[in-house]
Amino acid sequence: MSEIKYLAKQLAQFSDERDWGRYHNPKNLTMALINEAGELIEHFQWRTPEECEQLDDQTKEAVRLELADVFIYLVRLADRLEVDLFKASQDKLVINARKYPAQG
Amino acid sequence: MSEIKYLAKQLAQFSDERDWGRYHNPKNLTMALINEAGELIEHFQWRTPEECEQLDDQTKEAVRLELADVFIYLVRLADRLEVDLFKASQDKLVINARKYPAQG
Amino acid sequence: MSEIKYLAKQLAQFSDERDWGRYHNPKNLTMALINEAGELIEHFQWRTPEECEQLDDQTKEAVRLELADVFIYLVRLADRLEVDLFKASQDKLVINARKYPAQG
Amino acid sequence: MSEIKYLAKQLAQFSDERDWGRYHNPKNLTMALINEAGELIEHFQWRTPEECEQLDDQTKEAVRLELADVFIYLVRLADRLEVDLFKASQDKLVINARKYPAQG
Repeated sequence: MSEIKYLAKQLAQFSDERDWGRYHNPKNLTMALINEAGELIEHFQWRTPEECEQLDDQTKEAVRLELADVFIYLVRLADRLEVDLFKASQDKLVINARKYPAQG
Repeated sequence: MSEIKYLAKQLAQFSDERDWGRYHNPKNLTMALINEAGELIEHFQWRTPEECEQLDDQTKEAVRLELADVFIYLVRLADRLEVDLFKASQDKLVINARKYPAQG
Repeated sequence: MSEIKYLAKQLAQFSDERDWGRYHNPKNLTMALINEAGELIEHFQWRTPEECEQLDDQTKEAVRLELADVFIYLVRLADRLEVDLFKASQDKLVINARKYPAQG
Repeated sequence: MSEIKYLAKQLAQFSDERDWGRYHNPKNLTMALINEAGELIEHFQWRTPEECEQLDDQTKEAVRLELADVFIYLVRLADRLEVDLFKASQDKLVINARKYPAQG
């Protein structure tokens, strides 16, 4: 099983065990997703682009866990919408490659 | 190679071929990530929770490609920060399980 | 009447004339607000901090109208929640002044 | 002086007294704005639309202060970009009225 599908299964079980199904509808999950993206932003908003590349260890770990939160809600939302994230990313890259042809 | 690592490689190459490296710093990528999360929100903001579960085919496809965009920037950002998204999600789930113990 | 209260009245009337009341509930309006904030971000995400201070005229006008959209949804949301935005800002500034005392 | 201009002056002085000018550039302020919008979302994401209309007093006060934060960064950002928020909102309403004509 792919990592994404494995995580989706874990999250469905995690939700079931806590009776969170009624909260985890697509509308709510898009809100949770952007809320976590906003928490991620907080670590970068007052730092210069250069400082953002050289985070101290404590901030790095906080950022790592915020990225995890975004990933978790993204995978949960995609699962609830029956979207295959990897397949979708491959389809989007084809569109992007057409839209922004490589120079050369 | 896992799907996430495969996509990270694709995105690094896509960026290199277009000389986008200077744009793809962590500060900018967090902004791009939340911008895409905001575009996702647009499809859900005026719909009731029930309507959000029964999207028409055209909206479904648009949502699928927005999810792809969020995923693409998340994977690109994690790669630039040298974060293993799957490992981070597993670490976060351990924290969450402690914070929200299952009933029973 | 203050500008904010005047705008709130305009927006209530605008909504009534279009029968948008059922869409303009607080949950939906927070989503519309962050969606507009995300559209604002788009103009700044690939520009350096320096470039963001020297926008061309066309981008400036686009940014001005995005700021208007954020303002419109913020005022509409505050109105629906019966929050006096100016009074709230004054209360928040007192809290902030205590949290971050001025040096000197 | 209008409330918005009064607040903009207060914020400029607040920033000057703390030597925050170098942090308060437009790029950073758009990030702070959306971060606060994300904190606002958190209060609404797991509540039904109906529950969002009947917040308890503690949540109401927390929401009021989050709205203040969004307003503060919006006014600060507009001031840094030399945008007149009220004028911009009036211009935007003209555009919206043309785009969405009232029925009747």
